[in-house]
Amino acid sequence: MSDGAYSYSLTTFSPSGKLLQIEHALEAVNHGNSSLGIKATNGVVLAAAKKLAPLVDETSIERISNITHNVGAVFSGLSPDFRVILKKARKNAEKYRLKFGEEPSAKVVATYIGSLMQEYTQAGGVRPMGCSVLVAGFDHKHHVGELYQIDPSGSFWSWKATAIGQDSLTTKAFLEKRFRADMEIDDAIHTAILTVKETYDGVLTENGIDIAIVGERQTGQGDSAKVTPIEFKRLSVEEIKAYMAENE
Amino acid sequence: MSDGAYSYSLTTFSPSGKLLQIEHALEAVNHGNSSLGIKATNGVVLAAAKKLAPLVDETSIERISNITHNVGAVFSGLSPDFRVILKKARKNAEKYRLKFGEEPSAKVVATYIGSLMQEYTQAGGVRPMGCSVLVAGFDHKHHVGELYQIDPSGSFWSWKATAIGQDSLTTKAFLEKRFRADMEIDDAIHTAILTVKETYDGVLTENGIDIAIVGERQTGQGDSAKVTPIEFKRLSVEEIKAYMAENE
Amino acid sequence: MSDGAYSYSLTTFSPSGKLLQIEHALEAVNHGNSSLGIKATNGVVLAAAKKLAPLVDETSIERISNITHNVGAVFSGLSPDFRVILKKARKNAEKYRLKFGEEPSAKVVATYIGSLMQEYTQAGGVRPMGCSVLVAGFDHKHHVGELYQIDPSGSFWSWKATAIGQDSLTTKAFLEKRFRADMEIDDAIHTAILTVKETYDGVLTENGIDIAIVGERQTGQGDSAKVTPIEFKRLSVEEIKAYMAENE
Amino acid sequence: MSDGAYSYSLTTFSPSGKLLQIEHALEAVNHGNSSLGIKATNGVVLAAAKKLAPLVDETSIERISNITHNVGAVFSGLSPDFRVILKKARKNAEKYRLKFGEEPSAKVVATYIGSLMQEYTQAGGVRPMGCSVLVAGFDHKHHVGELYQIDPSGSFWSWKATAIGQDSLTTKAFLEKRFRADMEIDDAIHTAILTVKETYDGVLTENGIDIAIVGERQTGQGDSAKVTPIEFKRLSVEEIKAYMAENE
Amino acid sequence: MSDGAYSYSLTTFSPSGKLLQIEHALEAVNHGNSSLGIKATNGVVLAAAKKLAPLVDETSIERISNITHNVGAVFSGLSPDFRVILKKARKNAEKYRLKFGEEPSAKVVATYIGSLMQEYTQAGGVRPMGCSVLVAGFDHKHHVGELYQIDPSGSFWSWKATAIGQDSLTTKAFLEKRFRADMEIDDAIHTAILTVKETYDGVLTENGIDIAIVGERQTGQGDSAKVTPIEFKRLSVEEIKAYMAENE
Amino acid sequence: MSDGAYSYSLTTFSPSGKLLQIEHALEAVNHGNSSLGIKATNGVVLAAAKKLAPLVDETSIERISNITHNVGAVFSGLSPDFRVILKKARKNAEKYRLKFGEEPSAKVVATYIGSLMQEYTQAGGVRPMGCSVLVAGFDHKHHVGELYQIDPSGSFWSWKATAIGQDSLTTKAFLEKRFRADMEIDDAIHTAILTVKETYDGVLTENGIDIAIVGERQTGQGDSAKVTPIEFKRLSVEEIKAYMAENE
Amino acid sequence: MSDGAYSYSLTTFSPSGKLLQIEHALEAVNHGNSSLGIKATNGVVLAAAKKLAPLVDETSIERISNITHNVGAVFSGLSPDFRVILKKARKNAEKYRLKFGEEPSAKVVATYIGSLMQEYTQAGGVRPMGCSVLVAGFDHKHHVGELYQIDPSGSFWSWKATAIGQDSLTTKAFLEKRFRADMEIDDAIHTAILTVKETYDGVLTENGIDIAIVGERQTGQGDSAKVTPIEFKRLSVEEIKAYMAENE
Repeated sequence: MSDGAYSYSLTTFSPSGKLLQIEHALEAVNHGNSSLGIKATNGVVLAAAKKLAPLVDETSIERISNITHNVGAVFSGLSPDFRVILKKARKNAEKYRLKFGEEPSAKVVATYIGSLMQEYTQAGGVRPMGCSVLVAGFDHKHHVGELYQIDPSGSFWSWKATAIGQDSLTTKAFLEKRFRADMEIDDAIHTAILTVKETYDGVLTENGIDIAIVGERQTGQGDSAKVTPIEFKRLSVEEIKAYMAENE
Repeated sequence: MSDGAYSYSLTTFSPSGKLLQIEHALEAVNHGNSSLGIKATNGVVLAAAKKLAPLVDETSIERISNITHNVGAVFSGLSPDFRVILKKARKNAEKYRLKFGEEPSAKVVATYIGSLMQEYTQAGGVRPMGCSVLVAGFDHKHHVGELYQIDPSGSFWSWKATAIGQDSLTTKAFLEKRFRADMEIDDAIHTAILTVKETYDGVLTENGIDIAIVGERQTGQGDSAKVTPIEFKRLSVEEIKAYMAENE
Repeated sequence: MSDGAYSYSLTTFSPSGKLLQIEHALEAVNHGNSSLGIKATNGVVLAAAKKLAPLVDETSIERISNITHNVGAVFSGLSPDFRVILKKARKNAEKYRLKFGEEPSAKVVATYIGSLMQEYTQAGGVRPMGCSVLVAGFDHKHHVGELYQIDPSGSFWSWKATAIGQDSLTTKAFLEKRFRADMEIDDAIHTAILTVKETYDGVLTENGIDIAIVGERQTGQGDSAKVTPIEFKRLSVEEIKAYMAENE
Repeated sequence: MSDGAYSYSLTTFSPSGKLLQIEHALEAVNHGNSSLGIKATNGVVLAAAKKLAPLVDETSIERISNITHNVGAVFSGLSPDFRVILKKARKNAEKYRLKFGEEPSAKVVATYIGSLMQEYTQAGGVRPMGCSVLVAGFDHKHHVGELYQIDPSGSFWSWKATAIGQDSLTTKAFLEKRFRADMEIDDAIHTAILTVKETYDGVLTENGIDIAIVGERQTGQGDSAKVTPIEFKRLSVEEIKAYMAENE
Repeated sequence: MSDGAYSYSLTTFSPSGKLLQIEHALEAVNHGNSSLGIKATNGVVLAAAKKLAPLVDETSIERISNITHNVGAVFSGLSPDFRVILKKARKNAEKYRLKFGEEPSAKVVATYIGSLMQEYTQAGGVRPMGCSVLVAGFDHKHHVGELYQIDPSGSFWSWKATAIGQDSLTTKAFLEKRFRADMEIDDAIHTAILTVKETYDGVLTENGIDIAIVGERQTGQGDSAKVTPIEFKRLSVEEIKAYMAENE
Repeated sequence: MSDGAYSYSLTTFSPSGKLLQIEHALEAVNHGNSSLGIKATNGVVLAAAKKLAPLVDETSIERISNITHNVGAVFSGLSPDFRVILKKARKNAEKYRLKFGEEPSAKVVATYIGSLMQEYTQAGGVRPMGCSVLVAGFDHKHHVGELYQIDPSGSFWSWKATAIGQDSLTTKAFLEKRFRADMEIDDAIHTAILTVKETYDGVLTENGIDIAIVGERQTGQGDSAKVTPIEFKRLSVEEIKAYMAENE
Repeated sequence: MSDGAYSYSLTTFSPSGKLLQIEHALEAVNHGNSSLGIKATNGVVLAAAKKLAPLVDETSIERISNITHNVGAVFSGLSPDFRVILKKARKNAEKYRLKFGEEPSAKVVATYIGSLMQEYTQAGGVRPMGCSVLVAGFDHKHHVGELYQIDPSGSFWSWKATAIGQDSLTTKAFLEKRFRADMEIDDAIHTAILTVKETYDGVLTENGIDIAIVGERQTGQGDSAKVTPIEFKRLSVEEIKAYMAENE
């Protein structure tokens, strides 16, 4: 295949029924920094490796972002494309609030991102988005976490735990071995750190990883037990350092 | 043929009178998870195989969806494209209700989807949809089931029983041997399970199949006999498990 | 010629003055199920072969459709394209009624379809329609039948009898031998059945053919003779069966 | 030149200064049924060969059409393209009447058609028209006929007599020998019939030719002489038959 | 270079800095019938060769046209393109009159045509105009003629005398030898006829040339001398015949 | 590289980071007639070579044009493109006057032209402008000249003296040797004439060069010294002749 | 790869998941004049090399520009593209002021530029921007500098110190060795000058470098210490000269 030929292609079917531009966009995802998500019994954990160049201001790199107060997202692939998705998903969440008078769930957000991604595979003259996204939220009615993966094709799946980006096959295999259905948020954070460490290029420090959680917290026990929601929040460098210290 | 050449083609005729992009889209369908539909005397059954990756949240995979309270649909091929169809078909059903004051029949829905699919084969700059769809409903006036298949070309057919997606030739041959015109819904569900099992990759459990029905239920006998509609509903994992137990 | 090259072509002239996409669309017509029309003294008969796959609901296949109460149409080629034509032709007939206060004749309908087909050969970015159409009506003022053929180019002709689709050359030759100018509707139906049988793939049953008529009926004789219009109607399977029984 | 390459070309200049799509469109004209026009002292005659397939309804083939009551047109090439021109020319004539309160002359009509044809050679995304047109009218002020030829390029010429379509070189040469400036309409009709016969494929009958005239008729002589306009009219099959009988 | 490749090109730069479509359009000009213009002391003469096919109505061929009462134009190249320019230039002159309350000069007209031509070399999807144009007028304030040439690129020049179209190099060389700055209109007409004759294909008669003038006429002498404008007019065949007789 | 391939290219990046259409447009500039500009202490001089064909009306060739009363411009390359720029720059200057109540400076004009040129390198479907432009003005507040060069890319620079078009390398080298920062307008005109002569094809006469100036004039001395602005003006042929006579 | 093939490509994915047009645009950046930014404790320094051609007016070259009073930017690559970004970023800053009643921070500006750049990589028919940009500001609440780099892909990073353009690898390595977190603005200016000198082509003078700063100034000490903001300002040639003198 000549170098120039693919460069002006739209997303159309190949004879084998594949949408080539989507296959190529997935390559962009597979070269992106790795990200993962883990459902715990009382919440969901997102984590992402950060690549640290000399002189870069590492505190400024935010791989994980919130879409609403209760829903967060991480990506692997092209960051400028993710920012477009983030902006549109936030606007859409605002519309949802105005229309339904409540916060959109992680599923609503993931469905929206999936539709958005699909449009970019069928509309004339545009290329697909060059990133995959993990969306995490918590259903406070049924007390269960929500974790979705959306691909450049617009496909999305619900996972107990999953990984995207560089080395995602290795990372997923690692997660399969480590995952337990009864993990609480704290265990899941430890698992996330160990998983990122597994494929991290160099020595992983608290500056090399971004972690965020969403879920709920139980205080008291028995009759006086009370459940309080944890809004989506990114851990501070200090908090991550503390977890890493415990891990050792 | 060079790899790059087809990737920017619109849907136009080849010298042999074929619309190549549609042929290629059918390839996408043929690589999709298999789905089937069976008309019973008192209803229609849709069934679809679910592929279970480790750590995937299998309860979240819904292969079969409802378009109205009385009409359901299953697909093989690209799920993001099916979601677009689903969304538009639901909006169209709403318009139909407003305009005619009654629910659209499965035929109305299938005709709409067929027109939609056709548009994507002729309009400038877009590719065809990458999925085939089965639409099921029940005509409560004439007490007969309705089962339609719509292809990426926009063609549609009415079937007594049919299958789409992976191994559809094998599946159809199996159905031809098993199908009896006097089956009731329960028999049809058993047939559906056996048919999916035939080509399922691995051991089929209640989590590996999605089943839905629509039809009517007769209660009482003779003079006190009464017929009640069954709205379209997906079977729960427990219900599927029960049917599978009976099968053995 | 490379496989990919033609797939993004618009309808433009080849050096020999041909519009290639139209030639290719005619190939699609020539691979379609065969259809025919025969003018009788008191009406017009349309007939079309139906391909019967196992488990297909043969009663649901309608190859012949009405455009107005008095004008019908049959096609060979891509059914989704024909449905687009049907929809637009019906809308146009409605407009005609509103504007002129009378039903459009078959000629008006055929002219409209011809213009529509032509547009698809010259407008930017679209491909030609992939079907030929026969339109039948009856002129109750002059007591003569109307039978038109429209091709993907938009060309149309008036015929005494003609055939389109698979084996149309054989079928036309057969019609040339059988056609008599003084046939009445009943004779024309018999001729239509015999003609379809000639090239039918397998044994032709009443389910394998679609027949429709339009015309007028004379009742009484001499002074009390009265002529009543026959609106366009598709024969029932029973009626077709009866005609086939007489044929033997 | 590869088969596929030209099929998506717009009308642009070749290195030799030619507009290729127009050259190719002229090929379509040269393969069309032949048409001719002859100016007589008191009118203009248009004639066109009709190709008669078995079972075709020859009375329905109208090769010559009127644009206004006083202006007629015949074409060689693609009939669907001619119908588009006809429709637009009629609409334009209507506009002309509304604006100027009088009928457009043949020159006005031919100029309009020329501009229309030119547009199709320069606008983006469309192909040129695939037919040449002869336009005939009569100037009742100066008592002279008007005969124009318009080509796919939009070029037009005024002729004493000319021919377009198949064998136009032979036909023109024949006309050059036969044409006399003092012919009246009747002589011109005879000449037209003989000219068409010259290149007709098979035996020319009254059904194989379409003839139309426009002009004026002188009644009485000397002081009581009166000139009455002849509106554009197509000769009936009987009238043509009569002329052919005289010819023999 | 392959035959098909250039046919869908827009007007863009070649590596040598040339706009190829314009070079090709100039080829169309160079194959067109030859035209010329000559400035006299009291006016400007335009002349153009007419190609006479047998049976063509030579009186109807008007190579030279007026844009306003005082400005005329002749072209070499594609006549349909020139007609488009003519129409637009006339509309523009009308606008000019409404806006400024006076007739546009030849320079205003030529500038407009130049801008128009330029647009066709830069706008998306269109090809350049396929003709060069000479525009002639007379400045009655300064008593000097105006003669402009505009090319498909939109370039324009002012000339004392010039020629475009077939054999323009020969014709220009001839003009260079013959031109005298003190020629009056009558001398310029004679020179024009001789120049056209030089490259005319066959024997030049009064029907084979189109001539038009614009300028002013001096009547009386000394104190009673009066200057009257000559509006742009085409010479009649009789006038041309008279000039040609004088020439011999 | 095939001849046809580049002709439909938009302005996009080559693998080496170059915008090819701009490189090609610069070739058009390098083949254009040469132009130059020189800053003097009390003004700026623009000069341009004129190519004189036989019979051309040399007085009509204006290579240098004014954009406002105080800002002038000269170009090398395609004159029709320059005219487009001129027209837009004048309109923009008018808008500026209305908005800010003062004349735009040469810098404002050059910035506008640069933005305009840039647009043509990035907008869809158009080619870059095929000319470079020198813009000259004078800042009467700071008593300094302004001289800008704008290229087809939209880049612009401020120069003390520079040249564009044919032989610009030679011309620039010549200017580097001749330029002195303390030259007054008269010296700069002499330098301009000598520089044009250096690469002029043939003998340079007063008709072969276009010269224009802008700046200020000091009258009186000491206390009675007064500075008057010189609006942008083109030198007459007589003035140029006088300067050339002094030069010898 | 053929020369012509890439020139009409849009920004789409290559099989390896790369957006080729962006890779090529980065080449344009890598050939551009080098620029750098350094965060000091009390401000941020931007610097850029200026290429000095003979006779160019070096005082007019402004490589560094302000976007608001408090935010500045420098670029490497195509200056006309940077000017487009500058214009849009300024307009956007104005909108921000109107909407939020305060100045946008450097981060707001960098985010806007990133979104703008991303659009040019996905919208139909346009090419990416051909420059990278450094944006500098100062956060007067937290007393920390802000330094962002935005690439043609729309990606952006926060740096302690960085370089773009020609020799950026060498320059960055130099910066890594020289950078100290406790440098004040004056030290950072010295470092910037030394860094530019390192790769400068020729002898670096005060005219060969553009320097600008933003930050804050502490006056007094202890209790009477007061901090005043330094708005973004470009150093004068004299100031640069002074710094260079100190350096030696």
